[in-house]
Amino acid sequence: MPRISKKGQWMPESPIRKLVPFAEMAKKKGHKVYHLNIGQPDIKTPEVAINAVKNTDITVLEYSHSAGFESYRKKLSAYYKTHGLPVETEDIIITTGGSEALLFAIGTALDQGEEIIIPEPFYANYNGFSTASGVTVVPVTTSLENNFELPPISEFEKLITPKTKAILICNPGNPTGRLYTYNEIVLLAEIVKKHDLFLIADEVYREFIYDVNEKHYSVLNIEGIEQNAIMIDSVSKRFSMCGARIGCIVSKNKDVMEAAMKFAQARLSPPTFAQIASEAALDTPQSYFDEVTIEYKSRRDTLVEELNKIEGVEVGVPSGAFYCIAKLPVDNADDFARWLLESYDKNGETVMIAPAEGFYSTQGLGLKEVRIAYVLKKEDLIRSVEILKDALKVYNSL
Amino acid sequence: MPRISKKGQWMPESPIRKLVPFAEMAKKKGHKVYHLNIGQPDIKTPEVAINAVKNTDITVLEYSHSAGFESYRKKLSAYYKTHGLPVETEDIIITTGGSEALLFAIGTALDQGEEIIIPEPFYANYNGFSTASGVTVVPVTTSLENNFELPPISEFEKLITPKTKAILICNPGNPTGRLYTYNEIVLLAEIVKKHDLFLIADEVYREFIYDVNEKHYSVLNIEGIEQNAIMIDSVSKRFSMCGARIGCIVSKNKDVMEAAMKFAQARLSPPTFAQIASEAALDTPQSYFDEVTIEYKSRRDTLVEELNKIEGVEVGVPSGAFYCIAKLPVDNADDFARWLLESYDKNGETVMIAPAEGFYSTQGLGLKEVRIAYVLKKEDLIRSVEILKDALKVYNSL
Ligand SMILES: Cc1ncc(COP(=O)(O)O)c(C=O)c1O
Ligand SMILES: Cc1ncc(COP(=O)(O)O)c(C=O)c1O
Repeated sequence: MPRISKKGQWMPESPIRKLVPFAEMAKKKGHKVYHLNIGQPDIKTPEVAINAVKNTDITVLEYSHSAGFESYRKKLSAYYKTHGLPVETEDIIITTGGSEALLFAIGTALDQGEEIIIPEPFYANYNGFSTASGVTVVPVTTSLENNFELPPISEFEKLITPKTKAILICNPGNPTGRLYTYNEIVLLAEIVKKHDLFLIADEVYREFIYDVNEKHYSVLNIEGIEQNAIMIDSVSKRFSMCGARIGCIVSKNKDVMEAAMKFAQARLSPPTFAQIASEAALDTPQSYFDEVTIEYKSRRDTLVEELNKIEGVEVGVPSGAFYCIAKLPVDNADDFARWLLESYDKNGETVMIAPAEGFYSTQGLGLKEVRIAYVLKKEDLIRSVEILKDALKVYNSL
Repeated sequence: MPRISKKGQWMPESPIRKLVPFAEMAKKKGHKVYHLNIGQPDIKTPEVAINAVKNTDITVLEYSHSAGFESYRKKLSAYYKTHGLPVETEDIIITTGGSEALLFAIGTALDQGEEIIIPEPFYANYNGFSTASGVTVVPVTTSLENNFELPPISEFEKLITPKTKAILICNPGNPTGRLYTYNEIVLLAEIVKKHDLFLIADEVYREFIYDVNEKHYSVLNIEGIEQNAIMIDSVSKRFSMCGARIGCIVSKNKDVMEAAMKFAQARLSPPTFAQIASEAALDTPQSYFDEVTIEYKSRRDTLVEELNKIEGVEVGVPSGAFYCIAKLPVDNADDFARWLLESYDKNGETVMIAPAEGFYSTQGLGLKEVRIAYVLKKEDLIRSVEILKDALKVYNSL
């Protein structure tokens, strides 16, 4: 019998999805499961996007250009400019989700055996894409205690070796909710310039910022790192259209775009229906986003407030995205998360949370932490935290 | 300035797409370009597929299961069984095109630095996926002279090293149109069993076979290689829905499926609209396929007949898929293909062909050959070959 690759063995299981079978069991028992574990918003997709697909007059569903519809890229360039980002049509390649953009960025920046520095905790699939690409993740640790602030330059420099080729950040952060300050972004810019590294910035949550006096600093707006910066974007969260599978990779670096284009050509094209929807989504009225922001802000405030009421729970203050990390009064959050689904219910209801261990690369970190996504409506969030509170009491008296 | 990866530099340009700028120039001059270069059929997508999307009542476009809709996988399993392939629901992971299935298969079977044997000429993007995965392609040469028949076992065995992990075939073949005989498939089965290799079979053209007394032999039907066989499939050609971007990877090998599932989880899910279309496409009436087969058969017969009329042109007899390789009376088919777009027209019309060099891995092979896709309607094919004939005359008297 042939053996699968080491890479295939080493590919991490998604910490978000591996509890799925237990959730399915709970549901088969008739339990209601509140999903605090996934980044799938319940927000309606803009009608203009779905209607564009419903009204299509396509008769032959053809491949598109490998870089995506030209009309879409043009409109997207205009969109970025309106939002203060200097992005030309030719700086954009449309991808199958931000996921594929990440894969292209890593493949373009790094060879197998090379190293990418990522502040941990980080979006767990960065591990998957790195493993798939034979690239080694070198974590720089940040922590709940200081709200996931980046460490000083010296901590990064300790980690830089001749094999280091890129730094990857997520801003605002999944799972932390961290919004990097101007100083933090400038610090990163200095490092990548000094050491000739790429700075890959996953900005798929760019619009999800909840305080008027906070501002998002894109790597595309920092002077002097035009050749270092690679930006990852996605329609998944912005328009609540995760199932479209449309994202993009953006860079001013021509070599990067040329190489990314070859990756794009190999897989032919991004999905056509989804591009139609994504192009139309750019006509979504501002009122939609205003409502969404108000909704998420209120969810965040509610979640943090309610969690803070539970004894022994510590939680950061997420400025952006729609996640937070919470430290629970348990020894092992993984066991607890599984127990919630397998052995617990409160009047037929339970919650599903994502153990944070899988968001850390350093062994032994995050064991007591979980990531909570606030993608449910307020009543459900309140109810979920009530259940969590009760469950912790029961669990800790077992 | 940071440097891109070697992999990014080495990624091959698509031989099918690199002439695109010249075609665009020709079109800007007002010339009509007959596209013999791409595998984008002009056949209508089944209405049942497009209507399913148009009639969707989705309000939140969500991620699906990473393996794809369960309902779709179940229906697909039933479809395969009807067509004589023993495929269970759990043997299937839905992918973003056959392209992604190929990437998962290569990632699951091979580590960087390992070797995959592929009969050449082959679908050029096998190079791209291999390069992206750090895998070395080892070609075993077949040729137009004997209609791309596989060489004897001894030729394969000469190429097998401790690093060889898989053989990849395309059946029926793009670009050759070769349909492997039962004996050829059994030969491959013997080799992979004896040397504990994976046999990855790209069967995306399975239904495109034009002679009643010819039969497709799937690797899934060969006893004794259940643990070696990985099958790649796609809706792109079967239902003329290339822009959907839906395919699948199929295997009975649990380790393979478990690893492939981790690759699938990292990229979250295949596109939702496209899965709706693909699931509905399974209800396409048989009459659709009967008509399509009749149409392609007549196109193939026409193309081969017309090409054979041109002096100095040699062409194989493609049994399946919708491509053929033709040897032209020119020194360099690449130069000729470019000249056709840049400097030639016949009453404002020209043709675009794919130089075959990019389908060979061995340097120097295929220099006089082109791949011609018969995805245009008969009149256009006839006209295209007329143009080609005239162009060859003009070119050779320059
Ligand atoms: C930080 C981050 N980046 C990228 C992605 C990928 O999203 P998609 O592939 O849907 O665009 C996600 C999805 O949750 C994410 O949280
Ligand atoms: C032999 C072969 N395999 C795979 C593919 C990939 O097709 P898709 O990703 O559209 O399923 C193609 C497309 O032309 C092909 O010709």
